[in-house]
Amino acid sequence: MSFDLNTIRAAAERIAPYIVETPMIRLPGLDRYLGCEVYGKAECMQVTGAFKYRGVMSKVLSLSKEELARGVVAASSGNHGKALSYAAKMLGIPALIVIPYGTPAVKVEAIRSLGAEIVQCEAVDRFDVAARICEERGAVMIPPYNDEFVMAGQGTAGLEIVKQKPDLDAVVVPVSGGGLISGIATAVKGLAPRIKVIGAEPAVLPRYTASLAAGEPTAVPPSRTVADALVSNRPGPLCFPFVAKNVDRFVTVDEEWIPKAQKMLLLEGKIAAEASSAIGMAAVLQGKLSFEPQQKVCFVISGGGVGAEQLAKILTEE
Amino acid sequence: MSFDLNTIRAAAERIAPYIVETPMIRLPGLDRYLGCEVYGKAECMQVTGAFKYRGVMSKVLSLSKEELARGVVAASSGNHGKALSYAAKMLGIPALIVIPYGTPAVKVEAIRSLGAEIVQCEAVDRFDVAARICEERGAVMIPPYNDEFVMAGQGTAGLEIVKQKPDLDAVVVPVSGGGLISGIATAVKGLAPRIKVIGAEPAVLPRYTASLAAGEPTAVPPSRTVADALVSNRPGPLCFPFVAKNVDRFVTVDEEWIPKAQKMLLLEGKIAAEASSAIGMAAVLQGKLSFEPQQKVCFVISGGGVGAEQLAKILTEE
Repeated sequence: MSFDLNTIRAAAERIAPYIVETPMIRLPGLDRYLGCEVYGKAECMQVTGAFKYRGVMSKVLSLSKEELARGVVAASSGNHGKALSYAAKMLGIPALIVIPYGTPAVKVEAIRSLGAEIVQCEAVDRFDVAARICEERGAVMIPPYNDEFVMAGQGTAGLEIVKQKPDLDAVVVPVSGGGLISGIATAVKGLAPRIKVIGAEPAVLPRYTASLAAGEPTAVPPSRTVADALVSNRPGPLCFPFVAKNVDRFVTVDEEWIPKAQKMLLLEGKIAAEASSAIGMAAVLQGKLSFEPQQKVCFVISGGGVGAEQLAKILTEE
Repeated sequence: MSFDLNTIRAAAERIAPYIVETPMIRLPGLDRYLGCEVYGKAECMQVTGAFKYRGVMSKVLSLSKEELARGVVAASSGNHGKALSYAAKMLGIPALIVIPYGTPAVKVEAIRSLGAEIVQCEAVDRFDVAARICEERGAVMIPPYNDEFVMAGQGTAGLEIVKQKPDLDAVVVPVSGGGLISGIATAVKGLAPRIKVIGAEPAVLPRYTASLAAGEPTAVPPSRTVADALVSNRPGPLCFPFVAKNVDRFVTVDEEWIPKAQKMLLLEGKIAAEASSAIGMAAVLQGKLSFEPQQKVCFVISGGGVGAEQLAKILTEE
């Protein structure tokens, strides 16, 4: 398997019957806060509420009938696990999700309600447990980012971005392991190299900034972050070269700015998104990124995984 | 001035440089709650946060230079007043907004910060005060709905709806005086008569249901409603005949369902909208409206005038 614009196009064809083309939303209410003409690519409105469904579907639909029948496995209590559970339900195949002890019951139930089998274990053991189950059952592990089919699926968001708004000046992408940005950057640079692609990552987890400086995938110390969908502490080795080649710039964002941007997006942009989705806007609020007033900038709003309690919390905090 | 599809098209041309084409958002997360394929026409993402800016701009741009120079007036502390203040600012003309005593300071400041002059008075006197000021200054009163230029401006949302999703089965519109629905229904029936247009109004203020039964514009007793942008107690006389001719059906919605729908739209649809905007979805939750699973239904999300406190309140209530 290779990875380029053509693999992304093939993924788009494969997943088209299952995903929705998410809207490119003009957000005039945010212009004065972000100093440019603001657009949001609303992946929070994707099926299962995050871009993850694209990559998961791209990967699952690449499997043989025999593989599908043996089922799919992931170690994720978040958007990836939810997306895989729903994909398996759509295709009528078994899914097993490994979830750490201590995961909020509401998240566990959300995944169980989609029909997935659930195995719980200690957080540190989750990848080993998932690998052992795959071996025992002949099931296929679906990686969250370090896989070319997954990267190609995430890249389909990039094809849509260029189609929907070809005269953009820049796209700003939240970054963790690099699945989303490797896909989007490869699609955007393949179609419209003039558009700048910018990655935003938590300052407490600067895995791409560090790796690009080192010239190779490099781990940084693990850390918690309010952007709780962006917790990988190293780039995916398969993602890294495409990020290094196609991303114009990275910025790191301090924790305090992320909920501020999330609240702004909710109150002024009218979109309820998870903290991680607001990291690009947070970079601008913090002064790490700036644009000219006439520049058209698309912020990828990667997911909507935020519950009532969390939203109420950001609304009542200063 | 007449009112038909051509006047709406002329309004669209007039206001194009000022408004944004709001997105038609596919909302797969709401399908299982509303029993159909759900779309939202996101007027909450219009300039100034509501469809009102379309009608106001359509009207203001119909005025002569001399009229513009004498300024514009409205009696509204809500979306209409905000839209007019911003329109005046864009065009560099004076605006005066009459606001009742007791209006929350945050709303008053929002309008003042747009540069409008503010006059406060008793709520019952507000239209008289506005009329007297117009007479004294030769300024032009901009009505919130009972005006053909305003109706034509609101109708431009209908042109966009049909262009964006021509294969819709139905459009559901929140209704107060009838400016928005007269415009949308006239546009939709002019372009795609197959698409059903359905109005939703508060059960405590059933002015269109009563008027259609009576065959003429009829007042109902004034009432408060949680849908606080839908408080007219009678149809606009100019709106009524176009509503009677072009709207397929009206439903009335009980108060308790409106915040439930607003909360669903926020948590499952990821859109922060004012209560009034959720009344169409509330009609479905209440069982007053139902669709087939394969039907494509567009709910007009008329405005996003909801603050942090109100959002926090609906999030923490059952």
